[in-house]
Amino acid sequence: MSFIATPQSMHFAEPLPLQGGASIRDYTLAYETYGTLNADRSNAVLVCHALNASHHVAGVYEGQPRSEGWWDNMIGPGKPVDTDRFFVVGINNLGSCFGSTGPMHTHPDTGEVYGADFPVVTVEDWVDAQARLLDRLGVQQLAAVLGGSLGGMQALSWALQYPERMRHAVVVASAPNLTAENIAFNEVARRAIVTDPDFHGGHFYRHGTIPKRGLRIARMIGHITYLSDDVMNEKFGRQLREGLAPRYSTQDIEFQIESYLRYQGDKFSDYFDANTYLLITRALDYFDPALAFGGNLTLALARAQARFLLVSFTTDWRFSPARSREIVKALLENRRDVSYAEIDAPHGHDAFLLDDARYMGVMRSYFDGIARETAA
Amino acid sequence: MSFIATPQSMHFAEPLPLQGGASIRDYTLAYETYGTLNADRSNAVLVCHALNASHHVAGVYEGQPRSEGWWDNMIGPGKPVDTDRFFVVGINNLGSCFGSTGPMHTHPDTGEVYGADFPVVTVEDWVDAQARLLDRLGVQQLAAVLGGSLGGMQALSWALQYPERMRHAVVVASAPNLTAENIAFNEVARRAIVTDPDFHGGHFYRHGTIPKRGLRIARMIGHITYLSDDVMNEKFGRQLREGLAPRYSTQDIEFQIESYLRYQGDKFSDYFDANTYLLITRALDYFDPALAFGGNLTLALARAQARFLLVSFTTDWRFSPARSREIVKALLENRRDVSYAEIDAPHGHDAFLLDDARYMGVMRSYFDGIARETAA
Repeated sequence: MSFIATPQSMHFAEPLPLQGGASIRDYTLAYETYGTLNADRSNAVLVCHALNASHHVAGVYEGQPRSEGWWDNMIGPGKPVDTDRFFVVGINNLGSCFGSTGPMHTHPDTGEVYGADFPVVTVEDWVDAQARLLDRLGVQQLAAVLGGSLGGMQALSWALQYPERMRHAVVVASAPNLTAENIAFNEVARRAIVTDPDFHGGHFYRHGTIPKRGLRIARMIGHITYLSDDVMNEKFGRQLREGLAPRYSTQDIEFQIESYLRYQGDKFSDYFDANTYLLITRALDYFDPALAFGGNLTLALARAQARFLLVSFTTDWRFSPARSREIVKALLENRRDVSYAEIDAPHGHDAFLLDDARYMGVMRSYFDGIARETAA
Repeated sequence: MSFIATPQSMHFAEPLPLQGGASIRDYTLAYETYGTLNADRSNAVLVCHALNASHHVAGVYEGQPRSEGWWDNMIGPGKPVDTDRFFVVGINNLGSCFGSTGPMHTHPDTGEVYGADFPVVTVEDWVDAQARLLDRLGVQQLAAVLGGSLGGMQALSWALQYPERMRHAVVVASAPNLTAENIAFNEVARRAIVTDPDFHGGHFYRHGTIPKRGLRIARMIGHITYLSDDVMNEKFGRQLREGLAPRYSTQDIEFQIESYLRYQGDKFSDYFDANTYLLITRALDYFDPALAFGGNLTLALARAQARFLLVSFTTDWRFSPARSREIVKALLENRRDVSYAEIDAPHGHDAFLLDDARYMGVMRSYFDGIARETAA
C-alpha cells in the first residue's frame, strides 16, 4: 500500500523567457508534494521526470489503488528517498501532456490551441520554471535535485543554472548530451509522427484526428532503446506467439517481441500527445551544457557547487556508463565532491526505474547522508 | 575503371515448393556472371545478397560508369575474389525488386499483381532457387558460397541444404539467427510500412500509390543499425546543419545526422518495393537452422561438410562478433575446418561492404587458397 498523493497546480501569469527566444505566459504547472517542509526549509528534494513521466512521482490517487507514481519504488515513507524526512516535489514540465500547459492548451494571445505553435522548450527552460514554482513554495535551497535519464539532465542543469540553490545533484542513467545515434533515434520517431497524415502539421486537434500511427512507431523505437539486448532475449527471445511453428506471414504477429512492441505502441498512442513527443525529444537533442564552452565539459561544469551522485547501469546502451563517466571526470577535474556507482544490472536504460538491491542501496545510503546533514 | 557487367535472366516454369507450404511457378531470376567457368567446372563462386542489394554484385553497366555493383571492391579482375580465376555468379533473390519475380509482378494463376499475396520466402527457399539456376548453368559443385549479413545466412544455409555441392562457405558479418532486438527493429520498420495509409494492405500498386512514408522510416531505422555509434559520432556528431546556433524547431532539420537520415530515407523510398521490404525482413526473422534441433546449433551444423571462413567486425552491433563466434564454436564442435577473423573496424555492420586493409587481406588470402585447390 502506498500513500495518497494529491495533484495540485499553480498558475503563472508573468512571462517566462525561453532559451529559443520566445516566451510563454499564463501557464500552469501541475505538481505534487510528499512529506513536510521542515522549519528551516532545508529538506526539499525536487524530482525531475523524463519523456513519458509526470509530476505524479509517488503514491496513489484516492480510490485508485493501481495509480502508483512512476518512481513509487524509490520515493515514499521509509523508501530510499524517505518522505518521512524529505519534502519531495514533482513538477510536470512545460509542454508535457499530463496537466501542465502544453500544445493541447490555448494560446493566450490567439485564443487558439497551440498545437505546433507551442514554443520549443529546453532543459534550461524547465529548470527556470521549476525554480519559480519552488520560489512560491518557499523553497530557497533544495537539499537535492534528483532525476533519471532526461530528468538527470535537469538535475545537472540545475547545478549549473542555480548552483547556490541546491546542495546535491543526483543524476541517474543520464548523459552530458545526446550522441548522434541518440539524436538519430529521436529523429526517426519524430519523422514517423510528422509524416503521419493525421498530424496535419501539428494542428491535428482542430481536425479531430490523432497521429496514432506515428505515435505507435515512435514508442516502439523508444522501447527498443530502453531495453538491453540481453533482457529482450531473456524475456522474449525468438518465441513465437502461437505454438511452435511459424505461420509464415509478413503482416501478422509471429514473434512474442512483436506482440509486446505493438501493445506498448498502442497503449502509448492512446494517451500521449504527439506535439509533446516532438518537444520533449527536442529538449533532449538540444541539451548540451558544454556547447557554450567549445565542447569542454570540464569548463562547463566549473559553475557547479553541489555535491554529486551519479549512477549508471552496465547494460544501458542509450545512456551508457561511459556517458556518466564523462560527467564524473569533468566534475573531478573541477575538484567537486562526486560519488559514482556503476550498477551491474541486466535491464538496460529501464534499470533506473526498476528495483535492484544494489541500486536501491546506493540511493538509500546517499539520501540517508543528506538527511543527516539536514537534521544537523 | 571496372569491367562491364551484363544482367541476364532465367525463367523457371516448374513450381518451386516453399518452406511456408505454398509454391511459386513461372518465375524469373535475374542474375549476372563474371569470369569464365573452367573446364572441370570447379571454379564457380556464388555471391548471395542482403536486404538492399541484388545480382549486380560487381562491374558497371555499359555506358553507366557510376553503376558499380554493390561488392565491386571485393570482386573483379585482380580483386580479393578474382574474376580472372573464379566464375562468379550473383542472383537476385525471389521476392526482391531488382529484376527477379517479386510482389510487383503478375501472379500466373490470377493474372493480378501479387502485392501482399506474394508467398513468404525464406533463406532456405532462396538457396533452393539458386541451386536450380546453378544446375542450368552446369555448376554441380561450387568452389565457394559467399555472403555478408543476410547473404551470410544464405551461405550458411547452403552448407546445410547442399553440403556436397560446395567446398567453402564464406560467412561475413552474419549470425545463426536474429536476436529479439534484431526482430524488434524489423518489426518497427514493417509497422511503419504496413500502417502507411498508402500501403493498402500491400495492394498499393492497384491504387497507384507507394507507401513512401513507411519506406522512409524503415530505411532510417535500418541505417541507424548499420552504423556504429562511434562512426556516427565521428561523421556527424552533434553538428548543426546550419551555422553554429540552433534554430529551435521541432519539425525542421537541425542536426546533420537528421539531414543524412532523411536523405537516405527519401532515396530508398524512390526505388525499393514495400512488399519486398516485408518479405526480406521476414526471411531474416525466420532464419534459424538450430530451431529443428531444439535450439542446438552444434547439432544443426553437423550436416555441413564445407570448409568455413567467418568474418565479423568489432563495432557491428547488429550482428556482433559474438554471433559469428557461436557459428565458429558449433562448427569446431563438429570438428569442421574453420577460419575466423574478427576485424577491428570502426564502421559497424556496414564494414562488410567497405574497404579495410585487414579485411580485404583476409578475404584475398582465403580465396587465393581456394584458387590454388581449384587449379591443382
